[in-house]
Amino acid sequence: MSAQQLISQLADSARIAGRTLSVSTGAQRKAALNVIADAIEARSAHILAANEKDMEAGRAAGLNSSLLDRLLLTPERIKAIAGGARQVSQLPDPLGNTLRQSTLPNGIELQQISVPFGVIGMVYEARPNVTVDAAVILLMSGNAALLRGSSSAAHSNEVLVSVMRDALASTSISPDVIQLVPSEDRETVKALLNARGKVDLVIPRGSAALIRMVVDESSVPTIETGAGVCHVYIDEFADLSKAVPIIINSKVQRPSVCNAAETLLIHSAIADSFMPTALKALHEAGVILHCDSASLTIAKKIGIPATQATDENFCTEYGTLEINVAVVDSVDAASAHIAKYGTQHTEAIISENKDVVKRFIALADCAAVMVNTSTRFTDGEQMGFGAEIGISNQKLHARGPMGLEAMTTTTWIVTGNGQIRS
Amino acid sequence: MSAQQLISQLADSARIAGRTLSVSTGAQRKAALNVIADAIEARSAHILAANEKDMEAGRAAGLNSSLLDRLLLTPERIKAIAGGARQVSQLPDPLGNTLRQSTLPNGIELQQISVPFGVIGMVYEARPNVTVDAAVILLMSGNAALLRGSSSAAHSNEVLVSVMRDALASTSISPDVIQLVPSEDRETVKALLNARGKVDLVIPRGSAALIRMVVDESSVPTIETGAGVCHVYIDEFADLSKAVPIIINSKVQRPSVCNAAETLLIHSAIADSFMPTALKALHEAGVILHCDSASLTIAKKIGIPATQATDENFCTEYGTLEINVAVVDSVDAASAHIAKYGTQHTEAIISENKDVVKRFIALADCAAVMVNTSTRFTDGEQMGFGAEIGISNQKLHARGPMGLEAMTTTTWIVTGNGQIRS
Repeated sequence: MSAQQLISQLADSARIAGRTLSVSTGAQRKAALNVIADAIEARSAHILAANEKDMEAGRAAGLNSSLLDRLLLTPERIKAIAGGARQVSQLPDPLGNTLRQSTLPNGIELQQISVPFGVIGMVYEARPNVTVDAAVILLMSGNAALLRGSSSAAHSNEVLVSVMRDALASTSISPDVIQLVPSEDRETVKALLNARGKVDLVIPRGSAALIRMVVDESSVPTIETGAGVCHVYIDEFADLSKAVPIIINSKVQRPSVCNAAETLLIHSAIADSFMPTALKALHEAGVILHCDSASLTIAKKIGIPATQATDENFCTEYGTLEINVAVVDSVDAASAHIAKYGTQHTEAIISENKDVVKRFIALADCAAVMVNTSTRFTDGEQMGFGAEIGISNQKLHARGPMGLEAMTTTTWIVTGNGQIRS
Repeated sequence: MSAQQLISQLADSARIAGRTLSVSTGAQRKAALNVIADAIEARSAHILAANEKDMEAGRAAGLNSSLLDRLLLTPERIKAIAGGARQVSQLPDPLGNTLRQSTLPNGIELQQISVPFGVIGMVYEARPNVTVDAAVILLMSGNAALLRGSSSAAHSNEVLVSVMRDALASTSISPDVIQLVPSEDRETVKALLNARGKVDLVIPRGSAALIRMVVDESSVPTIETGAGVCHVYIDEFADLSKAVPIIINSKVQRPSVCNAAETLLIHSAIADSFMPTALKALHEAGVILHCDSASLTIAKKIGIPATQATDENFCTEYGTLEINVAVVDSVDAASAHIAKYGTQHTEAIISENKDVVKRFIALADCAAVMVNTSTRFTDGEQMGFGAEIGISNQKLHARGPMGLEAMTTTTWIVTGNGQIRS
């Protein structure tokens, strides 16, 4: 069977099984998630044994320690995965909500309600927890899932999917709503990305290269997640006592994630007074500095090491303890820098001047604008969504952290009493 | 200059000019639309002269009368175009609306607001009115517009765009927010569809072939509009006095549009009693019948001409006075037929049984479900949106008729007082 035939078969099976989700109640889906959570804990030893096979193969293949750590499951991590499923089961049902409602002059009633997409494909990398995290979010939002993880986690994913499917067998939801896509070769990914009409949406999760590949090759609609070149702009009207903690938190608290800051912009009116404090604090936190000419002069004056920042620096998502620093003459200049180098993810302004903040927001063009707070708050958990399937970096459909609601689409229910159009 | 360079230049210019929209008030955008409407009326003679050049070229090229009619502008049509712009100016401002709002335990305030996409490309066919209709909807929703119409309407579009741009020169909005993309060759379309990062969204409007091409070739996010194979299902619990008018209205009132019905499904329990009435009414309205075996038998019995319907018939969007007829045994069978042959546009059920209606809705998977009313109501004007840029046939972002709101995306405004993440 070709990869295309295989995906077509899996998608058809998922679509038909999805009907059990279409007609399910929220209580039935919640119950199914709890059954899954129980099964994952009950079959922990089985899951760990499969994971050990992946770990052995990974070590034999010479995977680095960071990749091996992502691949690793432990009894605690399995508990956390089950806990995550229970947490999602406690969120409000995202389906059947009335989003808009009106009665037309001819008596027809309009109601726009939230409904599932149908069949959603996930393409992701080494972490086996994504297999369960994604499946339960999709199941809770009424969607059948085609899960395409990494071949390095093949044994773990296979067992996790079979545990979830076995668990569903005792519920009103068909086990076929969760389908594992084989990961031996890239052909299955390609087939998934081109199953337009069979698969309603594909979401990539992982490296920038993976996301780029999915967005470029997919004829199925996708939601781009990921890249964050985030800026912190310290305005001339900033409360400087807030500025340093926010700069440090944005850069240092977890540099590897997409909502960490990569560039610090400082208004020229406070460059001389504030820049030394900021550069010292960053240097003391172990951050390597890449400075434009104006900030490089100040760095040299106070004896802090720094390199001359290039255009490439300003475009780079470091993911490490490195930061760019530049001086700008106005909020408009800060916005222009951000428009040139940013990735429309998260941009922060530190200012007590409401007009300046308003202008920064109007010109920002990004998923989240932080006003006097850290870029690190662009996060589904932090923002109170309770679960997150990724952070959308695009403008279509969902922007920013995506929870259950982002996994729904809408339908108009138009109820009449025999009306016709004249 | 290559097509790619040209599009890049137009998009950059539109993006920069778009900043005048980002910081504009709703009142300023409304005023700009009225200035445009006035200018279109004032320069009516100029527009008609340009249109006459297109008409001459069209006649010389042997365009058929239907295409020539779409291309034609008259003093009345120009008045209607200006009236459309004024109507859009009276709609509620779609920007800056708060969609969600909450305060987190740490005191941070979350606010999700509607904002423009930025730069939107429109790819469309002969009708020159789309040039103005699209530009004013995009302008009102804060977006800069790259307009790529048909080469057959090149003179008309050029004058319409220059009239709108001249009008904007007297307002706070930069004229460069409206850009005409040259239409001499296909290269400009290809370049537009691949200007990812420069253009935020492309919307095709026109034939199925045009829409397919845009969806297939675009790396810029698109919204698929169009194809409608819509069904009317007459349930065993239908109020039959409503059924015939709804069937006839759905098929006959304007067969060329996407929300017209193409297939009639009748529950087997009422096939013998109701089918003859339905077939007679359709035949008398001039509709050609393509019947499955069960309905063909009835058609023959009552002497109404009909052909045997094939799979191809059931997939076809006729756009003419032709309809398919089939007998189904249950609401589930009706839904299965629709899932197999439908295009997820509009599906109607005629039934007085609430449980059956509920199940039909749950299994429908389409942009709009009509309950005891005509499929022809899936329409932005009819649904009270006041303006429509197209009907989305996809699930991502917008589904069904798209008004001003569908041309916006969102931003999270996260306001703190120095909070950092621990």
